[in-house]
Amino acid sequence: MRSALFIPELRELMAARDHETIREVFADLHPADGAEVVSGLEPHEMLDILAIIGNRTSIEMFEHLDLPVQKACLEKADPKAILPFIEGMSSDDRVDLIKEVEPEIADRLMPLMAQAERDDIRRLLAYEEGTAGAIMTTEYASVDKDITGAEALNRLRTQAPNKETVYYVYVVDQDRRLKGFVTLKDILLARPIQTIEEIMEEDVISVSIDENVEEVADRISHYDFLAIPVIDHDQRLVGIVTVDDILDVVEEEATEDIYHLAAAGRPLDYLHTGIFKIARERILWLFILVLTGFVAGAVMQKFQSQLTAVIALVFFIPVLSGTGGNAGTQTTTVIIRGLATGELEMTDVFRILFKEIRIALLVGLAMGILTAFRAVLTSPDPKLIIPLSLTVGLAMVGCVVLAISAGVMLPVFFKKIGLDPALMSGPFISSLMDVFTLLLYLSLAAAILPL
Amino acid sequence: MRSALFIPELRELMAARDHETIREVFADLHPADGAEVVSGLEPHEMLDILAIIGNRTSIEMFEHLDLPVQKACLEKADPKAILPFIEGMSSDDRVDLIKEVEPEIADRLMPLMAQAERDDIRRLLAYEEGTAGAIMTTEYASVDKDITGAEALNRLRTQAPNKETVYYVYVVDQDRRLKGFVTLKDILLARPIQTIEEIMEEDVISVSIDENVEEVADRISHYDFLAIPVIDHDQRLVGIVTVDDILDVVEEEATEDIYHLAAAGRPLDYLHTGIFKIARERILWLFILVLTGFVAGAVMQKFQSQLTAVIALVFFIPVLSGTGGNAGTQTTTVIIRGLATGELEMTDVFRILFKEIRIALLVGLAMGILTAFRAVLTSPDPKLIIPLSLTVGLAMVGCVVLAISAGVMLPVFFKKIGLDPALMSGPFISSLMDVFTLLLYLSLAAAILPL
Repeated sequence: MRSALFIPELRELMAARDHETIREVFADLHPADGAEVVSGLEPHEMLDILAIIGNRTSIEMFEHLDLPVQKACLEKADPKAILPFIEGMSSDDRVDLIKEVEPEIADRLMPLMAQAERDDIRRLLAYEEGTAGAIMTTEYASVDKDITGAEALNRLRTQAPNKETVYYVYVVDQDRRLKGFVTLKDILLARPIQTIEEIMEEDVISVSIDENVEEVADRISHYDFLAIPVIDHDQRLVGIVTVDDILDVVEEEATEDIYHLAAAGRPLDYLHTGIFKIARERILWLFILVLTGFVAGAVMQKFQSQLTAVIALVFFIPVLSGTGGNAGTQTTTVIIRGLATGELEMTDVFRILFKEIRIALLVGLAMGILTAFRAVLTSPDPKLIIPLSLTVGLAMVGCVVLAISAGVMLPVFFKKIGLDPALMSGPFISSLMDVFTLLLYLSLAAAILPL
Repeated sequence: MRSALFIPELRELMAARDHETIREVFADLHPADGAEVVSGLEPHEMLDILAIIGNRTSIEMFEHLDLPVQKACLEKADPKAILPFIEGMSSDDRVDLIKEVEPEIADRLMPLMAQAERDDIRRLLAYEEGTAGAIMTTEYASVDKDITGAEALNRLRTQAPNKETVYYVYVVDQDRRLKGFVTLKDILLARPIQTIEEIMEEDVISVSIDENVEEVADRISHYDFLAIPVIDHDQRLVGIVTVDDILDVVEEEATEDIYHLAAAGRPLDYLHTGIFKIARERILWLFILVLTGFVAGAVMQKFQSQLTAVIALVFFIPVLSGTGGNAGTQTTTVIIRGLATGELEMTDVFRILFKEIRIALLVGLAMGILTAFRAVLTSPDPKLIIPLSLTVGLAMVGCVVLAISAGVMLPVFFKKIGLDPALMSGPFISSLMDVFTLLLYLSLAAAILPL
């Protein structure tokens, strides 16, 4: 929005070569907003603007660009011209970008960088997607344990410009083993002659390099940390994960869960992904669901004689299978989200099931009475009023209880066998319930109706 | 988990009056973990343990307890004994707790507090749920613009113990109007004789007191802030919102969206809420969905003669309405989540619709061919093979295109008229699609089949 307004003006200023005004405009903007503004330009224009702005601001702006935009810039730019931006990025964002671009482009860029940075990139590239290693930055502040608080403040002054945060400071020994942790606040509050060893916390809460990002997010959120140290298998400090990256992780994880719950496949970059790729994500699940739909059809075929004898039975199929599906969707969603946020634990499962069955009886009874009443009004033949409404009402209670029980048990079972419980999506449970609802309903019809 | 292991040991230590060991156990734990451990005890035991631990640790532990546990403690405790915990809490958490407990309990507690704290609570209580005012804390660090960096460091030393964060420091004038902002890092990097005015950022990015928490979360996340200042309508600084609270907000908002998408009502504290209240949340939506189910039934009744003539038509109802519902659910979910995270904008809507229709044709064609093939196998009469599979295949393509279009347009329409697009849930779209799928399918049958 904001971006669209600025674009024509920016292009005018560029055409007039009024670099002074361009610099003033961006000096007044936060780099995050500056990045949003230039995102509306073509990559080569963006690179020109960044070159005009120069200094630290342009590097921060580049870092705030969305990954696809950074990628487009990198593909268009002269490697030498783009180098300062790549070198100025924090190490986690830099690796995310290198992962995105074509290998040729990375290969042209890498030799231009300093040895230390090349090593850093290679090391970070090796960590598996979705682990602490893949989202950590190597730019943490650290001090020795033997120096005083006053000396530590001086060290931090020299480290500050290049570190992701100086508010959390880690204490390591010669082998980079993590020995302690102090906050800048602790240092500030200590007497200047106290050593770091005296004020540091020795039991440092950390995450392991190959731990899942969800676990990292849980821990940062549980302790209200600004950052958490990442250690390798030899207890060596290898990086930190900061809370701003965790905010993104929490949002991405929620998106992933939401997509799973809707059987919509994996989240893709919607506006930049082709229709075949998007269709492929969705079709896999639809295909499975179509097959369960065929099974539901086969169930009906089996009860063909009942359906032909009393066609009114057919009229209640949408409401029965719809309500079963919806009640199951509601329940599976509550359970899956509860397990994901830690509100519910696997140990609570029987308590939850017992509670849900009581809820199911309440809900089923209310819906059953409503549907039975509707059957009274629909019945084609006075003789059929009682058996038809009894069949429909009982089927409704049964299918709600069945759906809600499945909504509890299926995600729990998935979690138990080590799969993502969110794969037990609403659509999947709905389709499964179609089959069981029809079986129950038509069996009841066969037993109760005078055919 | 961890909690369950400790409980018997803790009770033994309490019985043996071994206060020394209890203090040692909790001295080794982070207050967040200590809180988790004692959460397994009864409220009166918890209060005893906190009294034994004493000092700052017990207050921090109390603050880390879940709200329902804090509430239970407050209801059981002697007001005088619990006072230090309430006074020691940060102002935002304290108000959350006061909101939870019965008015009588708050009335007993309030007179015991200092005037300033009572006023603070009353002021915070007045802000509407879901706004910046309701989640902010009033404990921010502030300095005058005329002092030097070195003096500011000294001021912060005295403020630090009582402030939510000292890493972000706000500059206010005599009327508390927000004039600037410095980070502790800026102060550290400045020459000691530079004044705050010289180093502060004057364009402070803030939120207004009545702004929505989602907006606050977006801004903190956009700028990678650790905290954001909250100002009233006269530009006066009234509080700050910190990133750790925003992590909770992002998670809660995602939960709310997930519940809406499943038509599961509002999120409730599952384990502590009665079944009638849970059932009520779910029944409202089920009731609406049952009514659309009746409409679907009425559509079938209208086409009764076709259904009776070719009962095989009935066998394809589950797969058609299921696929329509699922394709609609997938699409509405992608759109709603995209709008919520800002990946998609309302201005993109026609581009999205055009893309989705092409996806729908791809998906519909694949599913249509599959279903038509199945109809060839099912057809009861060789004469019917071609018309039946044509009807079923065309209906499938049509219902997928219809469902996907509805999945784009309905949430966009909801957002346009100012309602939460997430109310356009998967179940609702599925139920709606039941009606339209049946209309389309049975109209096609009436036109194509030789009846």
